[in-house]
Amino acid sequence: MGRFFSKRLSGLLPYVPGEQPQDMQYIKLNTNESPFPPSPKVVEAIAGESEKLNLYSDPECKVLNDAIAKALGVGKDMVISGNGSDEILAFCYMAFCDDDTGVCYPDISYGFYPVFKDVFYLDGKAIPLTDDFKVNPDDYIASGRTIFIANPNAPTGISLGLDDIEKIVKGNPDNIVVIDEAYVDFGGETAIPLTYKYENLIVVRTFSKSRNLAGARIGFAIAQKSLIDELNKIKFSFNPYNEDRLAIVAGAAAMDDKEYFEKCIGEIVRVREVTVTELSQMGFEILPSKTNFIFAKKEGFSGEKLYTELKKRGILVRHFKSERIKDFVRITIGTEEQMRTLIREVADILK
Amino acid sequence: MGRFFSKRLSGLLPYVPGEQPQDMQYIKLNTNESPFPPSPKVVEAIAGESEKLNLYSDPECKVLNDAIAKALGVGKDMVISGNGSDEILAFCYMAFCDDDTGVCYPDISYGFYPVFKDVFYLDGKAIPLTDDFKVNPDDYIASGRTIFIANPNAPTGISLGLDDIEKIVKGNPDNIVVIDEAYVDFGGETAIPLTYKYENLIVVRTFSKSRNLAGARIGFAIAQKSLIDELNKIKFSFNPYNEDRLAIVAGAAAMDDKEYFEKCIGEIVRVREVTVTELSQMGFEILPSKTNFIFAKKEGFSGEKLYTELKKRGILVRHFKSERIKDFVRITIGTEEQMRTLIREVADILK
Repeated sequence: MGRFFSKRLSGLLPYVPGEQPQDMQYIKLNTNESPFPPSPKVVEAIAGESEKLNLYSDPECKVLNDAIAKALGVGKDMVISGNGSDEILAFCYMAFCDDDTGVCYPDISYGFYPVFKDVFYLDGKAIPLTDDFKVNPDDYIASGRTIFIANPNAPTGISLGLDDIEKIVKGNPDNIVVIDEAYVDFGGETAIPLTYKYENLIVVRTFSKSRNLAGARIGFAIAQKSLIDELNKIKFSFNPYNEDRLAIVAGAAAMDDKEYFEKCIGEIVRVREVTVTELSQMGFEILPSKTNFIFAKKEGFSGEKLYTELKKRGILVRHFKSERIKDFVRITIGTEEQMRTLIREVADILK
Repeated sequence: MGRFFSKRLSGLLPYVPGEQPQDMQYIKLNTNESPFPPSPKVVEAIAGESEKLNLYSDPECKVLNDAIAKALGVGKDMVISGNGSDEILAFCYMAFCDDDTGVCYPDISYGFYPVFKDVFYLDGKAIPLTDDFKVNPDDYIASGRTIFIANPNAPTGISLGLDDIEKIVKGNPDNIVVIDEAYVDFGGETAIPLTYKYENLIVVRTFSKSRNLAGARIGFAIAQKSLIDELNKIKFSFNPYNEDRLAIVAGAAAMDDKEYFEKCIGEIVRVREVTVTELSQMGFEILPSKTNFIFAKKEGFSGEKLYTELKKRGILVRHFKSERIKDFVRITIGTEEQMRTLIREVADILK
């Protein structure tokens, strides 16, 4: 780093997003996007708003937050939305951690948790998953830290039951517990009902996966009003107009179109099960997935090699180099046709 | 604040944006938006992109950054864009300040500078403008701080010459100087040419004012590659996908449509001069504006009263309560028709 850079951040290692090739020639199964376009109602809402872009967006994001509240059956004052769930997670780090209160998260989870720890120079602790890649709730009791848990977890795809989540929330009455439910719509159990009961619980969600809007950058949090007020205090001290006009109407339209949402989810879950069956028959071990991706390995065939061979054949999957998971690849569930191509190419590679 | 809130931020006072009434019944001359819709090419670009929103945006924002570089004649590696210039300014605070290096800025300037100081818990120093509301470059020499100066300044509208900017940049060789040129297109002198000469200069811009895209949230910075790399390090540690797909194509189209841009600017500058003449004839003192707003006061008529009376008549302007400027109102330049209505109502109020 150069001589002007913050000494606070001298050790910072930025997050590395999955490859986003701009030429679009790959079958993209590497960043857990939906293979389906946004709802036609989203496209329509955007068209109706784009001529108003000379005027600022609503800093309260009322149209969007109200649509979220309505669709999920929570109070209107229990919602804050942001520029992707990454921004919402960052606001949680800013609002609920400090020099005395560090953070903890599973050692194998969303790669951004330790990055946020560094960018806000907090003490961080990575808590190992069990040998079968599960979160053990007992490891999180009385942590003395702000807790971040992705449920279902990524890149494992494994979901934790609501009883276990409640045990963690209850076991940390003096600390905030953030449950990152980016993938919950594909079969997990949401902790939203627990937000009424616990004043220290925040549930974070995204429109990037189950709402077909990764490119619109919309995330949100659900919690009791007191916590939402504090997250808003951060938002209004960082970027009051954090959601643009098009994201606000797009997100609202996506939340309103329950039918399209359920149709897409149903298809992805169906194709996931087909894919799991076929890869299992080919000798793959696949962790039990409640998400729109699967985490798979094949004894005697390295994850890196599978990733590389698939890329040569025009298919992008994600490989992580860290020791405990380097044998795996993470494969996003695409369309049935895309997955058929994947299976065919994997079979050919293994020959 | 509640018991979970960061003790680091206990004194935080969030930014208060100008009123954004969602019912649209006012003539809105309070937040310096353009009164003209975005370029038709922007609307077209958005329509062509909205069906692809299921896929993540390009974290490198290549299409947008290249369009900015081309339009402004700078190197492609000298640009970073973000979710409004507020996010870019925040990245500057994160990257180039720390416990040893605080910040300074004029006492009367963009209200967010002291808020960012608090949210990143930095030492901050507000340097008074001169009695005639000008930045005195001598007050910023060897500051030992990261310097933020809006040029032209807001809410005064007064512009500083390039010689004075260079004096400040040269006078702080060991500190970053950020020149916030949100309003420069309306008649100011840009410091972009100086970025080639000085490794400690960052120029920040926005699409919210002169590019008719306040609601799309696009800002950017121009600086030498080494500084842009460091700002990218922050971006990729905070929100790698900070620009959504629609903002990327909208911004690129706006930058490409030079003709529309110049037409809108020309009209706003023309209407500004007419408005200044008319208000002056009515006894207003108006600071010399190089922006899309004017800062005006009338001896014996309080700024707050004028704001309140205009609001009753359906016209929103901005009033600031702080002591040195409480006699003024800040009036955005709208369409000719809007300004005619304003003049008529002001005359009526003064009767």
